[in-house]
Amino acid sequence: MINDKLPKIWYGGDYNPEQWGPEEWSEDDRMFKLAGIDVATINVFAWALLQPDEETYDFSTLDATMDRLYNNGVYVCLGTSTAAHPAWMAKKYPDVTRVDVQGRKRKFGGRHNSCPNSPTYRKYSTRIAGKLAERYKDHPALLIWHVSNEYGGYCYCENCAKAFRVWLKKRYKTIENLNKAWNTRFWGHTFYEWDEVVQPSELSEEWDGNRTNFQGISLDYRRFMSDSLLECYKLEHDEIKKYTPKIPITTNLMGTYPELDYFKWGKEMDVVSWDNYPSLDTPISFTAMSHDLMRGLRSGQPFMLMEQTPSQQNWQAYNSLKRPGVMRLWSYQAVARGADTVMFFQLRRSAGACEKYHGAVIEHVGHEHTRVFRECAELGRELQQLSDKLIDARTQAKVAIVYDWENRWATELSSGPTVALKYVDEVHKYYDALFQLNIEVDMVSVEEDFSKYDLVIAPVMYMVKPGFAKKTEDFVSSGGTFVTTFFSGIVNENDLVTLGGYPGELRSLLGIWAEEIDALFPDQKNRIVMKQPWGELQGEYDCGLLCDLIHSEGAEVLAEYGDDFYQGMPVLTRNRFGSGQAYYIASSPEESFLQGFLSNLCAEKGIKPLVLAGDGLESARRVKNGNAYLFLLNHNASPAEVQIGEIEQKDLLTNETVKGTVMVPARGVMILESKLD
Amino acid sequence: MINDKLPKIWYGGDYNPEQWGPEEWSEDDRMFKLAGIDVATINVFAWALLQPDEETYDFSTLDATMDRLYNNGVYVCLGTSTAAHPAWMAKKYPDVTRVDVQGRKRKFGGRHNSCPNSPTYRKYSTRIAGKLAERYKDHPALLIWHVSNEYGGYCYCENCAKAFRVWLKKRYKTIENLNKAWNTRFWGHTFYEWDEVVQPSELSEEWDGNRTNFQGISLDYRRFMSDSLLECYKLEHDEIKKYTPKIPITTNLMGTYPELDYFKWGKEMDVVSWDNYPSLDTPISFTAMSHDLMRGLRSGQPFMLMEQTPSQQNWQAYNSLKRPGVMRLWSYQAVARGADTVMFFQLRRSAGACEKYHGAVIEHVGHEHTRVFRECAELGRELQQLSDKLIDARTQAKVAIVYDWENRWATELSSGPTVALKYVDEVHKYYDALFQLNIEVDMVSVEEDFSKYDLVIAPVMYMVKPGFAKKTEDFVSSGGTFVTTFFSGIVNENDLVTLGGYPGELRSLLGIWAEEIDALFPDQKNRIVMKQPWGELQGEYDCGLLCDLIHSEGAEVLAEYGDDFYQGMPVLTRNRFGSGQAYYIASSPEESFLQGFLSNLCAEKGIKPLVLAGDGLESARRVKNGNAYLFLLNHNASPAEVQIGEIEQKDLLTNETVKGTVMVPARGVMILESKLD
Amino acid sequence: MINDKLPKIWYGGDYNPEQWGPEEWSEDDRMFKLAGIDVATINVFAWALLQPDEETYDFSTLDATMDRLYNNGVYVCLGTSTAAHPAWMAKKYPDVTRVDVQGRKRKFGGRHNSCPNSPTYRKYSTRIAGKLAERYKDHPALLIWHVSNEYGGYCYCENCAKAFRVWLKKRYKTIENLNKAWNTRFWGHTFYEWDEVVQPSELSEEWDGNRTNFQGISLDYRRFMSDSLLECYKLEHDEIKKYTPKIPITTNLMGTYPELDYFKWGKEMDVVSWDNYPSLDTPISFTAMSHDLMRGLRSGQPFMLMEQTPSQQNWQAYNSLKRPGVMRLWSYQAVARGADTVMFFQLRRSAGACEKYHGAVIEHVGHEHTRVFRECAELGRELQQLSDKLIDARTQAKVAIVYDWENRWATELSSGPTVALKYVDEVHKYYDALFQLNIEVDMVSVEEDFSKYDLVIAPVMYMVKPGFAKKTEDFVSSGGTFVTTFFSGIVNENDLVTLGGYPGELRSLLGIWAEEIDALFPDQKNRIVMKQPWGELQGEYDCGLLCDLIHSEGAEVLAEYGDDFYQGMPVLTRNRFGSGQAYYIASSPEESFLQGFLSNLCAEKGIKPLVLAGDGLESARRVKNGNAYLFLLNHNASPAEVQIGEIEQKDLLTNETVKGTVMVPARGVMILESKLD
Repeated sequence: MINDKLPKIWYGGDYNPEQWGPEEWSEDDRMFKLAGIDVATINVFAWALLQPDEETYDFSTLDATMDRLYNNGVYVCLGTSTAAHPAWMAKKYPDVTRVDVQGRKRKFGGRHNSCPNSPTYRKYSTRIAGKLAERYKDHPALLIWHVSNEYGGYCYCENCAKAFRVWLKKRYKTIENLNKAWNTRFWGHTFYEWDEVVQPSELSEEWDGNRTNFQGISLDYRRFMSDSLLECYKLEHDEIKKYTPKIPITTNLMGTYPELDYFKWGKEMDVVSWDNYPSLDTPISFTAMSHDLMRGLRSGQPFMLMEQTPSQQNWQAYNSLKRPGVMRLWSYQAVARGADTVMFFQLRRSAGACEKYHGAVIEHVGHEHTRVFRECAELGRELQQLSDKLIDARTQAKVAIVYDWENRWATELSSGPTVALKYVDEVHKYYDALFQLNIEVDMVSVEEDFSKYDLVIAPVMYMVKPGFAKKTEDFVSSGGTFVTTFFSGIVNENDLVTLGGYPGELRSLLGIWAEEIDALFPDQKNRIVMKQPWGELQGEYDCGLLCDLIHSEGAEVLAEYGDDFYQGMPVLTRNRFGSGQAYYIASSPEESFLQGFLSNLCAEKGIKPLVLAGDGLESARRVKNGNAYLFLLNHNASPAEVQIGEIEQKDLLTNETVKGTVMVPARGVMILESKLD
Repeated sequence: MINDKLPKIWYGGDYNPEQWGPEEWSEDDRMFKLAGIDVATINVFAWALLQPDEETYDFSTLDATMDRLYNNGVYVCLGTSTAAHPAWMAKKYPDVTRVDVQGRKRKFGGRHNSCPNSPTYRKYSTRIAGKLAERYKDHPALLIWHVSNEYGGYCYCENCAKAFRVWLKKRYKTIENLNKAWNTRFWGHTFYEWDEVVQPSELSEEWDGNRTNFQGISLDYRRFMSDSLLECYKLEHDEIKKYTPKIPITTNLMGTYPELDYFKWGKEMDVVSWDNYPSLDTPISFTAMSHDLMRGLRSGQPFMLMEQTPSQQNWQAYNSLKRPGVMRLWSYQAVARGADTVMFFQLRRSAGACEKYHGAVIEHVGHEHTRVFRECAELGRELQQLSDKLIDARTQAKVAIVYDWENRWATELSSGPTVALKYVDEVHKYYDALFQLNIEVDMVSVEEDFSKYDLVIAPVMYMVKPGFAKKTEDFVSSGGTFVTTFFSGIVNENDLVTLGGYPGELRSLLGIWAEEIDALFPDQKNRIVMKQPWGELQGEYDCGLLCDLIHSEGAEVLAEYGDDFYQGMPVLTRNRFGSGQAYYIASSPEESFLQGFLSNLCAEKGIKPLVLAGDGLESARRVKNGNAYLFLLNHNASPAEVQIGEIEQKDLLTNETVKGTVMVPARGVMILESKLD
Repeated sequence: MINDKLPKIWYGGDYNPEQWGPEEWSEDDRMFKLAGIDVATINVFAWALLQPDEETYDFSTLDATMDRLYNNGVYVCLGTSTAAHPAWMAKKYPDVTRVDVQGRKRKFGGRHNSCPNSPTYRKYSTRIAGKLAERYKDHPALLIWHVSNEYGGYCYCENCAKAFRVWLKKRYKTIENLNKAWNTRFWGHTFYEWDEVVQPSELSEEWDGNRTNFQGISLDYRRFMSDSLLECYKLEHDEIKKYTPKIPITTNLMGTYPELDYFKWGKEMDVVSWDNYPSLDTPISFTAMSHDLMRGLRSGQPFMLMEQTPSQQNWQAYNSLKRPGVMRLWSYQAVARGADTVMFFQLRRSAGACEKYHGAVIEHVGHEHTRVFRECAELGRELQQLSDKLIDARTQAKVAIVYDWENRWATELSSGPTVALKYVDEVHKYYDALFQLNIEVDMVSVEEDFSKYDLVIAPVMYMVKPGFAKKTEDFVSSGGTFVTTFFSGIVNENDLVTLGGYPGELRSLLGIWAEEIDALFPDQKNRIVMKQPWGELQGEYDCGLLCDLIHSEGAEVLAEYGDDFYQGMPVLTRNRFGSGQAYYIASSPEESFLQGFLSNLCAEKGIKPLVLAGDGLESARRVKNGNAYLFLLNHNASPAEVQIGEIEQKDLLTNETVKGTVMVPARGVMILESKLD
């Protein structure tokens, strides 16, 4: 339980009373009650208010807000306010603003705007975190700490350059090691002194965002920046812990956000929280995958849905309204996949600046007689009714998909063989196939314990870090099934190719050799031709993107290419290794192939779908104290039929008992409780 | 009359004799006569020639040109030459060059390149304007002053930053007021001292041209820059007036150019002038609207067509030749809509640099035996024949469309609900419908006196400035018809939302409440379903872009949405208010809807079309001394039939008398004189 | 012969042993032998290794490599290593790094990164070239010098600004001349002192790469930058010649690379070499044209194919594998068109940095059992078998196409009439038509001796430099046939229009006057309507892009426009001039027109196709010592039938004798030897 002061699914969101006055505050109090809101995230962007100059701190407004909320039955998720520095600080200490990837020194503006290696920023952000902790450590409203906000963005200033060199020295010890790791003999880039190293930016090695001359330095700069920002978090975290060792601390993450290695971040957080902002055209399974990934950051521990919009966003190109019922449906999707909170950005819409057209529980009209408010209040009532039933319940998946931020960086920094390879999309293809099959999945790091799983899938495992190959071999030896794909096993953690034949360290496990890698144009296809029917797979399927030209070195060939000069070469192989099996898919297949393929593997391993249902019906399950909670989420605009099996289950939202075939209403939700088998 | 020295439609254009020598000059003299040219705009880009260094001025070339032109029967529109500073000035005083929105200090190059807050620029531009005025104040050729040229572009240098803070102090008095106006509590952007404010640029709050974190500061910077450039104009203007208080002063504007608030500029000009450069694919009605807008800058006063090309442009992607007859046709279009001059850029084509492929009266071949010259000379003869007939004639429209630059800035700076909203395009949709109906329209500012009109249309009146709501209520109370649309009444002049329900200050006038605003994807549509037939409207029509979800609060619902979850909610309403009516169109409709809708309103108000005619036949009317001058402009490549009514009218170009149905030749023009009813 | 030490087609490529160790070196030795490799390009990017600091030089690694290669039967193409400066140099002497066109000072990174006017770069690049020459002048492996690598890119730093002013003074003598050449009276840009001139960049006159306010300065900056880089080459060249006056020197060029005037460069090189990197979708005839252009840089002298990939590239969007046989086919294409070497980038794939996915003879797997290696080894055997047969053989074309880099710059810098005009594409249209007709072509400079040819084609000869018109008139007077097109004869070498009527200096030769130039939108077309059938031309053909509106002034009109207001005006004319004829094509025609037109001209001049064959079959011929070597290259994936005539010819690759009709296998090659008629 995140904090047992509030033993239910927390309900609330970001709240900025400092933008308003007493009239609105009393309306807020009244309407929060109507909506069943019991937690407010405050003080997220209030640094300038708390600290009007270098030596003055003024907590009076915050004091009053804390007290008012508490007296009104609302707990506080307390921000440290350090996601945007005050204007006076930028003026007095220019080191707090960043230099961008084009080498331009930024001026005051925006948010997430502080250089993570700025001495000024580190000093004052830590100091204010400490002051807040000291002041509110015993305040009864305090539920959890929210450090900064949506950490992100990189800096390229001279302070960062110096810190980068220190980071490199720590990593490589000697300049010779660094030269080797980055292969600097290429293009004569040998460094003789540490201070010859400059940041990879548009002024040196990079262009167009992710293009680089040297993958090694660009990869390390991403690691360094992720670490630098994490260090800022940790400084605040450690300062707070001095005062409130038992109050949990989090910061809000952003799903598949590319710039930070969230698996490293997860380790430093008491509870993971994240902000979920799908577009109208984001696949439902992509949101589901993001939730599962956030849950995976701390090996399955429940997380917080820190932000979502009640209705509409402002920063997308076309900001559609969430259709009636969709806010509730997506809220339960989060809960189904491990969230123990449902929180919004924002409780009251601001009247000015760029987020004034972002949805809120209390809209500009200011009263409760809106569709959006009614839906929020209805959900508030349901969450109170659910009480602590679902809190702390866990998912029990037998299938894991490996996700790795460093691997993502490396594949996207690669010069060749194709610009079309998007790591996240390839991972999502596998996730989506399992999602459609109603199979539970955990999204895991390369460091996760694989022995919990029967099936581990590592799409495009391009970068094989130390120990990964051995660990995977152990998993398969012991009976596990492992799947990987084209463009895997190519490089080590420094993006240096493992010589002697692809897929490098995974070669003996997979029993194949990839001699060449063909890149297809977007309109080009090849075919996967099954050598003989296998379970749900027979005949042929399209594939594209990249085609590894592989030779079996012991693996059984299940399918061959159907076209081009490598027609007849293997495209799908299975290698028996110890008691288990390792599959290799040499190209990027169409969806129907993956559903058949993964269906076969699950059948072999005895992994059963949660339910049988058609398109748009999502299922998920959480387990606690011997009970299973099966979530049925109907994303269709019409009712959906679902076969849930013959055991009686109780719908927590209606208290009805059901079994066999149930109908889930259009955009409706069922949460079915049963004894765990 | 602009200047009674030349009591006819002036005919001529930009002329740069300093690029040529005596041989060309005498050919110019000869050919200007052949072409009927009687005005030349000179000295527009001659600063470096007039002032070869800081202390030296040399007017000898200009003296000779003035005299030569006058002796040849050509008057002078005299430029002040300050649209491009000399190279020596940029080198000696770098403050004259600008810093761009990316923060890059510019070097010498281009034109419209001077920082408007540069002390050097202000000093020397004012000084040379004064010297010119002093020298030529009694020259008989002097007809009008042409200050600088096509003012535009913004600067982001430190001088501008300082001037911006002074401008802000004047506007807001206290930093508290500024913080409130910009809602700086958002993201903790509170300012404690004026000098903490930095310009909104790509280094601070903005990106991608019109994206910003803070609408307030970005809006004010646009106001400030428009004012700064206007201040440069006024400094020259005031200096000139010391010497020639009776000679009119203008500067050439650019239609719907986005960066300057031309309604403010119009107030400072004795006569408005503008440069008309449509593309081959610019809608005819868009050019017409631009003329009407320029006429509206000074409440209907005739304006100058300062520039158009005789044949082809150089800076478009594909520079089509104007087809035979089109130059004449478009020249009369300007006159029809209020121009008292027809002037070209340029009289002689330059031999080098970027405008050498821009059309001219005298082409590179240098003689008069060209199609372009023949067409110019033919038009010259006609304009002489028209004498002073049309000079100072006015338009008498009963319909006004409101146009507002600040509203345009605000809608385009808005973050959400859609990037697809283009203010000018929405305004043009309404204009175009009336244009097709042959209804006369004035384009007016929010400050215009509405009592002159029967129908006032304010599309996307997003920003409601102080007094506007009251004034519009008065107009409707007194019997006027007012039309506005979705996304209106949302914010005040600082882009702060008017709380309590959209459309804010216009809510009681319109009798509706807009609860939510849905943004549609480009390929999405909804439907306007008429509740019952109304005049020319019946059945259903497409709509899209944005859909306000409105509730009637007294307004009559004329049509409802046909689709989506807001099917059945009102999309077209009419509210009786006092003696008049206020309409609200909650989405962006297809063209046929608007033609029917506006046709209904005009019928109700007794506003009659000028003529009945088919597509591509444009009509317009000017009125003077009890006579009406009806222009029929056939933009088709085939003859057009027009019903002009049963009163006899005289064609000024042929002296024939016509009535009933007339045929206007392909790309032909008729100017029909009649007594005003 | 490039160097008679190795009297055969050289076979090898770029080799970077410094990235590897003894284990790989001995494998390299073994595998080079297997592949028949006899030349290695080394030391291209080794500056940092050779010169670890300002005063230390260490040649030990290079010594060992030279010796090892020589002992293994491999000669050396010795790089001077100056294409990328060492990191320590960038740190110690920042003047070596460039400032980009946006005005941003670059930091250490990339390659081709040195400012060409950096005193530091010039000093140390010359010094190391001299040290290498001194050290290896008598080394038996040394075959040829390879100065720097793929020169390119521009710099905009202050050192370049100063050098530009010196270059301008040399060119123009007085500032008055410069003002005149650039037409600086336009926009008042007159310069009074040389140091008022700043570089044309995004901070002054240019934007979007090739858009400029002043063509004159932008054109001169391109000339200056090409000269500046050439000066760097010459400094190294001259230093090397002091030690090895008889060893040839080259640097590798890049075909139609836009930034350098390669005709000026060719004059300074003992032998031209170039790097050939077609995409999968590059037309075969475009590669052929590039080879012919490189051959033309030194008037037909054989050149070196310095780089091509054995299999795949890394820097394209989608890096397809070269299909089986294609590497061999494209290698012979180079030889067929004048290459006396076949060389690869690279002999061994690097393990890290951005070229690790670029193909190589030795792949990451490290052994010879790969498709790519087998194809390389097979070609190596064939080249040994060909011995010195083809070395130094020449092409004997009777048709020349004029290509001019300065003309290319000028057309692409032009503001108007269309952005769609791409000089290289227009040239390629003419080349491609002749290629499809199996007619031999030389690509020549404007300075080439035309008397060798019967037919000279100068597409879009926009810029007519001094002497060109006279020389072309002489050529036609003496019986030659000359062809040029729309938008020709417009400007002089300073981009100043030749006044008095287009096509200026070519007007009397062509017997026409172009009154206007219409630019068509991409989806617009006009028609070429033949007045009567002429040879293979009859009926009508599409044309577009630009349409000159021309009048005959003596020329015979062969075809007229079919549409628009200039229907009936001439579009194809022939002017008899002395004993010859000059054709003008007033628009950009479709391909079938050009094939018919050029077929007619060749027939008239008695120029015969090499063979008769269908699509995808390329022919070329080299001649030596009274023998002709006819190359038949089948780019199709199926066999191709070719009629070669009734003389017996010997296939050098099979030693079979053939005549009449031969079948060339899919992607196959024949080299047929015969006595020259």
